[in-house]
Amino acid sequence: MTTEEYMQIAYNLAQKAADEDEIPVGAIIVNPETGEIIAQAYNQSAHHGDATSHAEILVIQRACEKLKTTRLWNCDMYVTLEPCTMCAAAISFARIKNLYFGASDPKGGAVVSGVRFFDSSTCHHRPLYHSGILADKCSQILKDFFQNKR
Amino acid sequence: MTTEEYMQIAYNLAQKAADEDEIPVGAIIVNPETGEIIAQAYNQSAHHGDATSHAEILVIQRACEKLKTTRLWNCDMYVTLEPCTMCAAAISFARIKNLYFGASDPKGGAVVSGVRFFDSSTCHHRPLYHSGILADKCSQILKDFFQNKR
Repeated sequence: MTTEEYMQIAYNLAQKAADEDEIPVGAIIVNPETGEIIAQAYNQSAHHGDATSHAEILVIQRACEKLKTTRLWNCDMYVTLEPCTMCAAAISFARIKNLYFGASDPKGGAVVSGVRFFDSSTCHHRPLYHSGILADKCSQILKDFFQNKR
Repeated sequence: MTTEEYMQIAYNLAQKAADEDEIPVGAIIVNPETGEIIAQAYNQSAHHGDATSHAEILVIQRACEKLKTTRLWNCDMYVTLEPCTMCAAAISFARIKNLYFGASDPKGGAVVSGVRFFDSSTCHHRPLYHSGILADKCSQILKDFFQNKR
């Protein structure tokens, strides 16, 4: 599968989040050697009732549970939005190898925006990151969601 | 209760973590108006098998569940170690009012160290923070834990 095809799966999860009135962000974790999708998640902050239930946190927890490990060496993550500061640090802790994201988030992101955590001195594992994958649609679904909220 | 007395409760939780072979960090969330301790937690990364189970994330999740809200307005957090980048962002998202921490963490912290998240442009709620509460013992329990690991 291509990078765009993996991101499309993450996008479909974001769509599912929107259908459930959650901020539409989706994420998957993939084993790039086998192509297996190890775990999938979408933002569930409203459902779970706490602000830590971002797609990235949930997908890491699920992948760690499935693989019985705290370290996702050699796994890649695809997420529709640039991770926030909390999630960027979680991605580093989980030892994700490649991070692919869709839309950039200048107001809340922490990879190419804000604290740029992977480039900071207290980041001890730096994933390779790749931005702009299906960026337009990943951004549009968020715009539509917040437009409908007004 | 005094600031030190609340931190002592967080310290006792760190001790419990050490007893369970977890990195000894403890945290509580308090309603400063009533003095009620709303939630308690200690690091459970090994037990839960994922790197997101820091004391601060767990105590936020428990407090949000108990109060049926994603926003802990007017609540204070006491934690034995300076929060990392992931936890600092989670504390901001949860709208914690005052953050009291014990030992500073130059290698992994994100409040007075590293990315200093609360002072960054992508931090949209800035807790007041107070460092150095029972710092020596909060630091010593970590040193002892890692010393025993060698």
